[in-house]
Amino acid sequence: MFRRSTSGLTVLAHSFGILSLILLLFWLLHYRGGLNLESDISERIFNVHPFMMFFGLIFLSGEGMMAYKTIAAEKPVQKFIHMLLHLIAICMGIIGIHAVLKFHNKENIEDFYSLHSWVGIATFSIFLLQWLVGFVLFMFPKASPGTRARALPWHICGGRALLYMAISSALTGLMEKATLLGDKYHSNQARTINFLGLSILLFGIFVDFSLVFARYV
Amino acid sequence: MFRRSTSGLTVLAHSFGILSLILLLFWLLHYRGGLNLESDISERIFNVHPFMMFFGLIFLSGEGMMAYKTIAAEKPVQKFIHMLLHLIAICMGIIGIHAVLKFHNKENIEDFYSLHSWVGIATFSIFLLQWLVGFVLFMFPKASPGTRARALPWHICGGRALLYMAISSALTGLMEKATLLGDKYHSNQARTINFLGLSILLFGIFVDFSLVFARYV
Ligand code: HEM
Ligand code: HEM
Repeated sequence: MFRRSTSGLTVLAHSFGILSLILLLFWLLHYRGGLNLESDISERIFNVHPFMMFFGLIFLSGEGMMAYKTIAAEKPVQKFIHMLLHLIAICMGIIGIHAVLKFHNKENIEDFYSLHSWVGIATFSIFLLQWLVGFVLFMFPKASPGTRARALPWHICGGRALLYMAISSALTGLMEKATLLGDKYHSNQARTINFLGLSILLFGIFVDFSLVFARYV
Repeated sequence: MFRRSTSGLTVLAHSFGILSLILLLFWLLHYRGGLNLESDISERIFNVHPFMMFFGLIFLSGEGMMAYKTIAAEKPVQKFIHMLLHLIAICMGIIGIHAVLKFHNKENIEDFYSLHSWVGIATFSIFLLQWLVGFVLFMFPKASPGTRARALPWHICGGRALLYMAISSALTGLMEKATLLGDKYHSNQARTINFLGLSILLFGIFVDFSLVFARYV
């Protein structure tokens, strides 16, 4: 009953996930003064936002998508971990969105003006919906096997689209922040942001590939 | 031998593609003074860039991906159109990148500083590679059936990843431009850009879905 297939693609996915995490923390701690939701310095409140959104909705969620391939356990255990990682992602997403709203409030910046915020809120809302529908269909109360089989391709494709949507959110967020920081172009900070963005994109692509090829081969 | 399946998903994909095209042209013509590669006004030279990149690398390329489903013709004809649409996309991509380089040159702006330009150039390079490998494997000189069958899943998944990469490029580009335009937030222009970005994203998602479900069902 135990399944495990750590293909090269999965290893690449993990690697870019961890690289992104390191680059993000390096950026936030070294260049942006650290993160603290209760700080008096509003930039530190803001910094909680990119961390929570990436760590929850991209890293943990991506790892959750790969759980059926990477966790050496029986199917129900894998399924529970899959569900749990996405639930943690949702909680972190709520904290992350709270952080940026608190920052906007403190700085008297209006909410939901940018393309980033529109893509971001659309992503988060559909993510929530996908989790709820998935929970009802596959965990509790659980639909009939026929319904589950019909719903599964939608769940899988919806999940992949959401991963790419979350990545688009993160990249537009990084792009917005980098542009707002202004004349810092060609600085090491700008390069850190650029490498971070590419690394997040590669994480997404390798998560996608590792899942598709687990079904192809 | 004739195949045709215009599912609801394909119709949605076409619709968001055309909506994006209209919104983009409306933005460029109504708010940004139009597009002209030979203009003395450097903003008009720049405007050629988003048009070419979206129309080529996203719209035509997405339509090319769906050609096997939407074009009522025999397989070799579909294949030729698929190849041709991506070739046109590459030509438009070259013009589009030329436009932004010319704009940078005229305005003395440095090249390749932003996350957008890094994601963009990575997307375009891999796009080119995917076209060349696809041409050699599937058209001329054409590999053996076994090699072609082994390569096909990679071609398909690579194509989808490239579509999402091109969309990330477009969204980061829009985000950068909107932020550079500055205090125009909450203006109609800003809202046009936001709707355009969402529409491009939905085009990508529906192209993806229409292709996957053509294989699932
Ligand atoms: C999955 C990833 C992400 C999602 C879903 C997301 C979502 C959101 C949302 C909904 C807002 C709007 C809050 C408001 O208007 O009051 C927002 C704001 C913001 N986010 Fe993100 N975000 C993500 C990642 C990031 C990242 C990685 C950065 C990089 C620094 C970032 C930077 C910003 C900035 C600068 C704002 C404030 C300006 C604005 O509203 O556009 N975001 N985000
Ligand atoms: C498939 C889509 C796209 C690709 C592959 C792409 C690619 C590129 C590349 C390679 C550059 C760098 C040129 C240089 O540094 O000299 C660039 C610059 C630029 N692009 Fe795009 N682009 C795309 C779509 C867009 C869109 C839709 C916009 C929206 C307005 C846009 C806005 C910009 C801006 C403002 C620059 C100049 C600043 C910079 O270098 O970041 N791009 N693009």
